Formats: sequence, C-alpha cells, structure tokens
Amino acid sequence: MHRTHTCGQLNINHLNQNVTLSGWVQKSRDLGGTTFIDMRDRYGITQLVINSDDEEGLRTKARELGREFVIKVTGQVVERSNKNPKISTGDIEIRVFSLEILNQAKLPPFMIEDETDGGDELRMKYRYLDLRRNPVRNNLILRHKMAQEVRKYLDLQGFLEVETPVLIKSTPEGARDFVVPSRMNAGEFYALPQSPQTFKQLLMVSGFDRYFQIVKCFRDEDLRADRQPEFTQIDCEMAFIEQEDILNLFEGLTRHMFKSVKDLEFEDFPRMLYADAMRLYGSDKPDIRFEMQFVELKNSTLPENEAPLLWKGGAEAGFPVFDNAEMVVGINAKGCAHYTRKQLDELTDFVKRQQIGATGLIYMRHNDDGSLKSSVDKFFNENDLKAWSAAFDSQPGDLLLIMAGAKDKVRKQLNELRLEMGNRLGLRDKNKFAPLWVIDFPLLEWDEESERYHAMHHPFTSPKPEDIALLDTQPGEVRANAYDLVINGTEIGGGSIRIHDKTLQSLMFKHLGFSPEEAQKQFGFLLEAFEYGAPPHGGIAFGFDRLVSIFAGLDSIRDVIAFPKNNSGRDVMIDSPSTIDEKQMKELCIKTEV
Amino acid sequence: MHRTHTCGQLNINHLNQNVTLSGWVQKSRDLGGTTFIDMRDRYGITQLVINSDDEEGLRTKARELGREFVIKVTGQVVERSNKNPKISTGDIEIRVFSLEILNQAKLPPFMIEDETDGGDELRMKYRYLDLRRNPVRNNLILRHKMAQEVRKYLDLQGFLEVETPVLIKSTPEGARDFVVPSRMNAGEFYALPQSPQTFKQLLMVSGFDRYFQIVKCFRDEDLRADRQPEFTQIDCEMAFIEQEDILNLFEGLTRHMFKSVKDLEFEDFPRMLYADAMRLYGSDKPDIRFEMQFVELKNSTLPENEAPLLWKGGAEAGFPVFDNAEMVVGINAKGCAHYTRKQLDELTDFVKRQQIGATGLIYMRHNDDGSLKSSVDKFFNENDLKAWSAAFDSQPGDLLLIMAGAKDKVRKQLNELRLEMGNRLGLRDKNKFAPLWVIDFPLLEWDEESERYHAMHHPFTSPKPEDIALLDTQPGEVRANAYDLVINGTEIGGGSIRIHDKTLQSLMFKHLGFSPEEAQKQFGFLLEAFEYGAPPHGGIAFGFDRLVSIFAGLDSIRDVIAFPKNNSGRDVMIDSPSTIDEKQMKELCIKTEV
Repeated sequence: MHRTHTCGQLNINHLNQNVTLSGWVQKSRDLGGTTFIDMRDRYGITQLVINSDDEEGLRTKARELGREFVIKVTGQVVERSNKNPKISTGDIEIRVFSLEILNQAKLPPFMIEDETDGGDELRMKYRYLDLRRNPVRNNLILRHKMAQEVRKYLDLQGFLEVETPVLIKSTPEGARDFVVPSRMNAGEFYALPQSPQTFKQLLMVSGFDRYFQIVKCFRDEDLRADRQPEFTQIDCEMAFIEQEDILNLFEGLTRHMFKSVKDLEFEDFPRMLYADAMRLYGSDKPDIRFEMQFVELKNSTLPENEAPLLWKGGAEAGFPVFDNAEMVVGINAKGCAHYTRKQLDELTDFVKRQQIGATGLIYMRHNDDGSLKSSVDKFFNENDLKAWSAAFDSQPGDLLLIMAGAKDKVRKQLNELRLEMGNRLGLRDKNKFAPLWVIDFPLLEWDEESERYHAMHHPFTSPKPEDIALLDTQPGEVRANAYDLVINGTEIGGGSIRIHDKTLQSLMFKHLGFSPEEAQKQFGFLLEAFEYGAPPHGGIAFGFDRLVSIFAGLDSIRDVIAFPKNNSGRDVMIDSPSTIDEKQMKELCIKTEV
Repeated sequence: MHRTHTCGQLNINHLNQNVTLSGWVQKSRDLGGTTFIDMRDRYGITQLVINSDDEEGLRTKARELGREFVIKVTGQVVERSNKNPKISTGDIEIRVFSLEILNQAKLPPFMIEDETDGGDELRMKYRYLDLRRNPVRNNLILRHKMAQEVRKYLDLQGFLEVETPVLIKSTPEGARDFVVPSRMNAGEFYALPQSPQTFKQLLMVSGFDRYFQIVKCFRDEDLRADRQPEFTQIDCEMAFIEQEDILNLFEGLTRHMFKSVKDLEFEDFPRMLYADAMRLYGSDKPDIRFEMQFVELKNSTLPENEAPLLWKGGAEAGFPVFDNAEMVVGINAKGCAHYTRKQLDELTDFVKRQQIGATGLIYMRHNDDGSLKSSVDKFFNENDLKAWSAAFDSQPGDLLLIMAGAKDKVRKQLNELRLEMGNRLGLRDKNKFAPLWVIDFPLLEWDEESERYHAMHHPFTSPKPEDIALLDTQPGEVRANAYDLVINGTEIGGGSIRIHDKTLQSLMFKHLGFSPEEAQKQFGFLLEAFEYGAPPHGGIAFGFDRLVSIFAGLDSIRDVIAFPKNNSGRDVMIDSPSTIDEKQMKELCIKTEV
C-alpha cells in the first residue's frame, strides 16, 4: 500500500497514529543532524522529521533527497513544537520510521512554487511540472467543480446531455474549419465542429426538448493571447420556448454557479439593448462594474442632432476636429482633474497606439475651484465648456476625456479608453462580478471585404417578426431575437431564438447571398428537417474556458486549460503539430505542398 | 407561452384545470364528428378531444392535422370515459378550446412508432426522425443518466475531470490516426487522439492523483457493425496505487452504475487469469452467464500431454484428424443429445463458415439410455467414448461437440461454437449480467506481419516484476499488470499499471523494436517527464458506448449514439465527408491525389 492518508489530511486528532504517506519532496533542510522534509501531494504538505539519533541508513537516505523526489514514508504522527498555522497539517509532523525513494528527480527547470521563476515558454514546455504548482492546479480543480455544477443544474432542469459528432461536414460560412482527410472516402474531408449548432437544432426537431453538452469546439483562426484552436462550450438548446424562458433559465444557471462555487448571490441580472450598449459604452459587451457612460456632444447619424449643438456660439473660427466629425463623444473621469501633463500625455499616447488608432484626445478639467479648463480653449468659450460640464454632469475635481471621429470607430476607441481609465482608477476589481444581458442584437452586419451582409450571430437566427419587413429596405436595421451574457466586460455566452420555418430560413439564406443551390448543398439536410415538423426553438452557448477564467480572476484562458497551445497553435510540450509518414499521406491520398 | 405542462404530466389530479400543451400529432382519428388526437412530446402522450358541437373553425383545423404536425392547444383536463391504463395520462383527456398549428409536416418516410417500417439506411438518413421513436430516445436518456452517474461517483471518490487536448501528435504505434493539417504550420499535422494515454500519465507526473474524463477518441480503422470512427471512453488514471486498488475502485463504479441505473446488486466480481480464460473459454472475454467450459482431450503444447491420452488403445488405424492436431477440445451441450441430423449439420456449417474457418465438427451423443454414439465411431471404441464422457462429465441426454486443430485457432473456433450454443439454448439472457475481471494478460504478442512483438495493451504497460527476467529469453511468456473488465462476453474496459521508470520504459521500447532515436522522437516528452519525479501509477478506460449498449440490452453501439456513422465512415444524414474548396486546400498547403 502506498499510503494510508494524504499529505493534507493529518492533524492533531491523529496523534500517535502510525501512518504511511507518499508524495514529492517540496524541500528538505538539515538542522544540526535533524532533517526536516516538506512532503507534498495534491492535498497539501506534511512535515517529516528524521532525528540525529535515528538509524544511520535512514539518515543517509534522507540526506540524499532532492527537490521533487517521489518518496513513501511510514512513521508516527507527533505534535510539532513549532506549529505552522498557515497549513491544515501545521500542528503535527511525522516522526519517520522508514523511507523509500519511489523515484528520483532531476532538478526542475523552474521552481515548483506559487510564485515561480519560470518564464511562459519554459512553463509550457514543462507543463507537467507547471501543473504541480498550486495556482495552476487550483484553476483546474475549479474547472472540474464548475463542470460538475453545470451538469448538476441542467440535469435537475430536465436537460439531457447528448454527444454530437466531432467528425462533421465543412461549411464555408463563418470562421475557418479544421479538416480531416478521410481514408475510406478518398479525396473527401470531415471538418471539426465550430459548434454543434445544426446537430442541436436537429435534436429539437427530434423532440429532445432540452439539450446540453459540455463540448470541445474548433476554429482555425489566427490566435490571440486569449484564443485557442480548441475550446470548450456549454452548449444548450430548448424547444417550445421564447427568449424570456432562455434568459431566465440561463440566468438561473449562472446564479447557481456563482452561489455553489463562490458563494455569491445576485439581484436580477440587468438587461441592456444592444443599441444602448453601443451608445453608452461603445461596446456590445460593456463592463458595468463601473459607470463612466459615454456622453455624446455630437452625433450626426441622428436626424435631430445634425448640427453641432454644444458649442454653437463658440469659437467663431470653428473647430474642424469637431465640425468634421460624425461623432464627438466623451467620458467623465471622476476625480481626475489633478492628472498631470505627463498622465494626460500617457492617455493620449494610449489612444494613439496602433491597436486603437485615434488621432488625438481632448480633455477638460473641472478644477476644484469650479473653473473649467480644456485643451482646446482657443476654440471654445466658457459657455461652451459650461454646456459640456452640464452634459457630463461634471463636478469640481472631474476630468472630461473627449474624442471625435466616425461613429463606429470613435466609439470603439473611447471604449478602450474607458476600460483603461477603469483599470487606472481601480474600478475593475476581479473579485467583483457584474453580469449583464445584452439583447436585441442586429440580425445582419455589413462585411466590407465580401461587400455583403453576414449573419451577426449565425444564419439560423430569427429576426424579430416586426422587423422582417425591413429585410428588403434596411437590412442593417433588422433586429434579431439574439442575446449575449456579459460578465465584467467579457462575452460569456450568446444565443438566439432560431428560425424553425423553411420559408423564412430560405429567405434568410437569400439575404445572406446564398443561391438556392448553395443553400441546398450546405444546409439541405436542415431545410429538409424543417419540413417534418420542427418546433419553435432557441438556445445559447457559454464559453466555458472564459467562464472559468472569470471565476478564477484570470485575464487569459490559458491557465484554465490543462495543456494549452501557444499563439502559433503549437503544443510545445509534445512538439505538435509535426510531419507524418509518407505512407500515412499515401493512404489518405493527400500530398503536402510547402 | 408554449406550454404549462408536458404531454406526460397530466393525470386525474389535474381535473378541470385549464392547460396549454405543445407537441407532435402522433395520430388523429375522426369518430362520428368527434376528433381524437394523440399528442406526443418527449415525456409522453396526451389525448385531445374536439367534439362535434365545438366551434366550426376549431373542428376544421383539427381535421387538417396530419401525422407529425407541431401543434399547441389550450383546453380543460377532463376525465376519460374510456381509460387507457397503459399510459400515465390514460385517465384524462383535454377538451380543446383552441388549437394552433406551429408547423406543418410532410408525411415521414417511415412510421414514428416503437416498431417502425423504416430500414436501417432510411432511418440513418432521417436520423432526426428516428430519434423521435421511444426506443431510440430512451437509449440516449439512459446514456445521459449513465454519464451523470459516472461523474457523480468519481467526483465523490476525489477524481478530477480534466480535459485533455483533441489536437495532438501522430504516433505510428497502434491503430491508424486521423490527422488534421495545420495551416499555421504548413506541411505539419495534428492527430486526433486514440486515447488520452500520454496526457493522463503526464497528469499523474503532475500530481493530479485521480483523473478521469468522459472523452471522445478516434481511430481510423476499417469499420465493423459495432465500431465507430469516433467513440467515447470513460478514461481514468490514479497515482500511488496498485492493481488491487484499481480493480476495487472500478468494480465499485460498475456496481454503482448497475445499482443506480438498473437497481441491480452483485456479489464480488469473479476474477480469472488470462491463461484460464483462454483454456476454459478460448477467449480473453468469456461470457460467463453460462458454464459450458472447454474440455481438452489433447493439448500437445503441454509437456505432460504430448501423447494423445483419451483414445490410447482405440482404433488401431488411428484417427489422423486427432493424431495430427495440436489440440483436441470440446464442449458439453447439456440436454442436446436429441439434436437431429439437420441441427447437427447446421452446427457443422456454422463452424465451417469463412469467418470461423473450421474444417469440421465431431460429436458424441450421450443417449437417454446411457449409450454413447459418436460421429467417428469407426475410429474409436466404447472405452474411448467412455473416457470422453468421463472427461466431459456427460450425463444421459448430453451432446459433446469436439473440434481439433492448432491450439490458437481451434480455441477461437470452439469459442464461437460455444457462444452459438449459448444463443440456441437461451443461456445468454440480455437481462442477466455477468461481470468478470480477466487479469494477468501477456505483456507482448507476436505479430506475424511485422515479425516482431507488439505491446498487447500499449507500450507503457508494466511487466510483472517477477517476469522481467523472461523478456530476453521468452518474451511471449512475460505477464503484465494488465486487466480487463468483461460483461456478458464483451470487453467493457481495460487497463494496466504503467511503467514509471525511465530505464524500464527504455527497455520496453527496445523490446518493441524502437531504436533509441525513434523512442526519443515519438515519446521523448514522456521519457523526459519520467526524470522529474514520476509516481507509481496506473489506470483503466471503459468503452462508454459499449457499456451503455450492454445496459440497454443492444448488440450494436449504433443505437446508443445520437448521430452514428455507417460502415464506410459516412454520416448519410449530413452527407459527410465531402469535398472541400480549392481555396481551403491551398491555405492548408495540401493537395488530394485520388
């Protein structure tokens, strides 16, 4: 037997018991002939002690131990003279009778400690050692717990977990597929699913009613820090429901997760129209842990706001940056009037970075003495500034940060600045959670490159019935029965009520630029299924990696994934992808052309 | 709102309530102006009634309904005059006030009934309709329930579910991999995992201690009726354990499944040595629902049995079929002495089929009057037959079926005949479950084609320490710490204690014909991991599809998989695999050569 207890289990109640433990040497120190060893396993650390009057063979073996050696000891639980209140086993130690080295260990390339000296690359190459560290292991324990709770909750709600296939069919719509050459069907390929979308809809046609799956999905996209080629979704679909049912049920799931995992309770999640989210935060996933809403000084896309209002009667020469802008919009950084020139320059540099691409930043200080002072004083008079102050409801001590430009661009830029100010002002506490439903997303979005409308969510999303008439005239204005769950400015989940009617689905394909033949070729089976009695249905999918990372207070999803890939899609630990045999390629009837 | 209740929910306690239901029209019949509609959803069937004195519009709409139309009705729960005790809602019916057709349906290509008229191919093409049938849906509900129970049990035992990657590295050892060309690493490929074997071992090196995962695995093999290119495993690994711990824990899991899902309890699972399984059943997965063990009349692979014993002093001319055979072995088909010539010919034809390939079958009747009569009477005398009868412990009424040939072949053939006799005699009841551990598998097996030993389980399986010395002299005799769980003659799971020592692992690779360079190239990361403190560990994997099919009493795994592929690896519903765009192939730097 390798152990009677774990290294996190023993305490004062076990005094005088003889026990056997197995684990790793965390560290070992020799104090005047007495050797103290910290022995670690998944459950904790237990101190072992070997005294100077112990048998010589045992003492010699103890001195041979290096960090990360795997050992098994038998001994007696004794009370420690020097207690450690920080660990659960801190009251006791093991007086060792026998010690067996189960395996030796080379010195690890970085320290197996909560704070390690290992760089990212080294930690990824030796991921199996990185996973020994408490913070990384705890993330995966959290992930396990969350997956269990998702299943528990949805099972209680009558959902059935149904496994959908991984080897499916490639469809050009959407992101790039990973493909798998078929040996038995030479020249043909499977694709790995970007989501089980069509299968879960077919399950609704089958009458499965309430489906879920925690499932791997795949997307062959160029990777950013927080994207992985394979990722995990909590994928759900329901029949005979309306949007309200889905929002309530999955708000319930999210509450259950917060309560069971973090013991946190929430009021009803607020809901925000997509249009308001864009107007007030410049983002469809606003971080509402803090206010700092946008205030528009000019919005020439609104008919009633075609003329610049808040500086009429201002500088006679006019201010071309504002005059020529489609939108002038800003935020009130409360209490930041004292910002130095250097700090303001930093903010300007921040918005001018290539990733953000603004041309400049205008500010107005509302000084403690009530005076108003802007960076564009030569263009605007006091009345103008007063009007701005009123619009932003600024108080003495506040700082207005204003940007101008084309509506979509300037909103994006100001969103970045708002988040940056949130960070600087400590308003984005990782232990605070602000969930939000964003609803009424547009059905379609214009794609510059292909010069056509694309489905914003996916081609199966249903338009709001009252907006269907706009499909021909103002397709960009048609709203969908589509919704996202946002937590702390991160999109956690999204879904929609689907089309369940063949005629409407065909109309949608037409508006997405599919010929009837293309629609038939790619989605013929779904269109056909809709002819055999498809119920009204809808669903949602949560990004599980992202949800876990938010719960763990992490910025990247990488540390909630046991074996992640790097930004080139490589697993540097196993050195994959790699070349394959000629023979394998011949069997698959493919050839590489590099 | 689409429904207040489901179609399986209402009973006499709901009398007079107004309810709304949604579902499918199972059938509809008109009896003298009164229309009865059976309305179906996932939960059951409820009878709707529309009377001849109901409003004309409602009556017309009711008459329009076809099978599988999707409808929503509101009405009152009333007591049925003609009760149906077979269904939970059989005491009531719904007096309909309003009826809405949510979606029409074309007539399905086969009947949506428990016993359908749809052939296999049609049912697969319209799988979403097949899934509406109770037996198919119930299989998937069973699967959901079993997955939930597996997770519940293992979670309680301290196991963590850790997701391992799907895009991994191809290794030539073992079965054929599915591969995925990498766009970002042109000319290179990922492979889909045949199992998460190396990752779970690395998790043990990481100290994760108790890992499990219900996980899709992939194997590009030529398919049989009960094989799928993608299949699901319950994959487990533990550290600091011995074989006994694993057998006990997973026997516990299996008991829990039987108890929670089928309310069945079991004694301790019997254990059988691999060598005994082969000797007594000619199979490493014996069906022990019935005895009918093998009796060897001759086994010239045993030193003490070189001479044929049981017909010495028999026919002077000798019987070449026995004399030249390595093994003569048979079974006692109890109570079958009355088999007719025709039945015996059938059995002979059965073993002579190409898939079995025997040259013939010898029988001996132990008649009711005690006389013995064989098909080879001219070669053997009464004493011989008496000796046989004694060896088989035959009683009046029994039939001995005897085959001769090379040991491995004849055992396989007789195994098939034994199972066939079990079927004929009704000894293989699907509602009876006989679990069995088969232990002490050989470490290596000789492969004729490559003319070298292969790992029987996989190259990470540890040999029994006492057999290591045989590796150089009699590699085929070395036993492994490897075990299978068998239920009703089907292998449900298998596993082993792994090698955790680099030196022993290198020795194994050598015996498997890997050069040090090949071993390094393919498994370098694992060998390196073993140098940083690998604990003793071992594990097991259960075939989840197979386990569910056994619980469901099915012969094939296909009906416990929502969207299975056919024997050519095709999904005939979505028509996959399929060709992909030239553009896609260019991006991936591959070309097909058909």
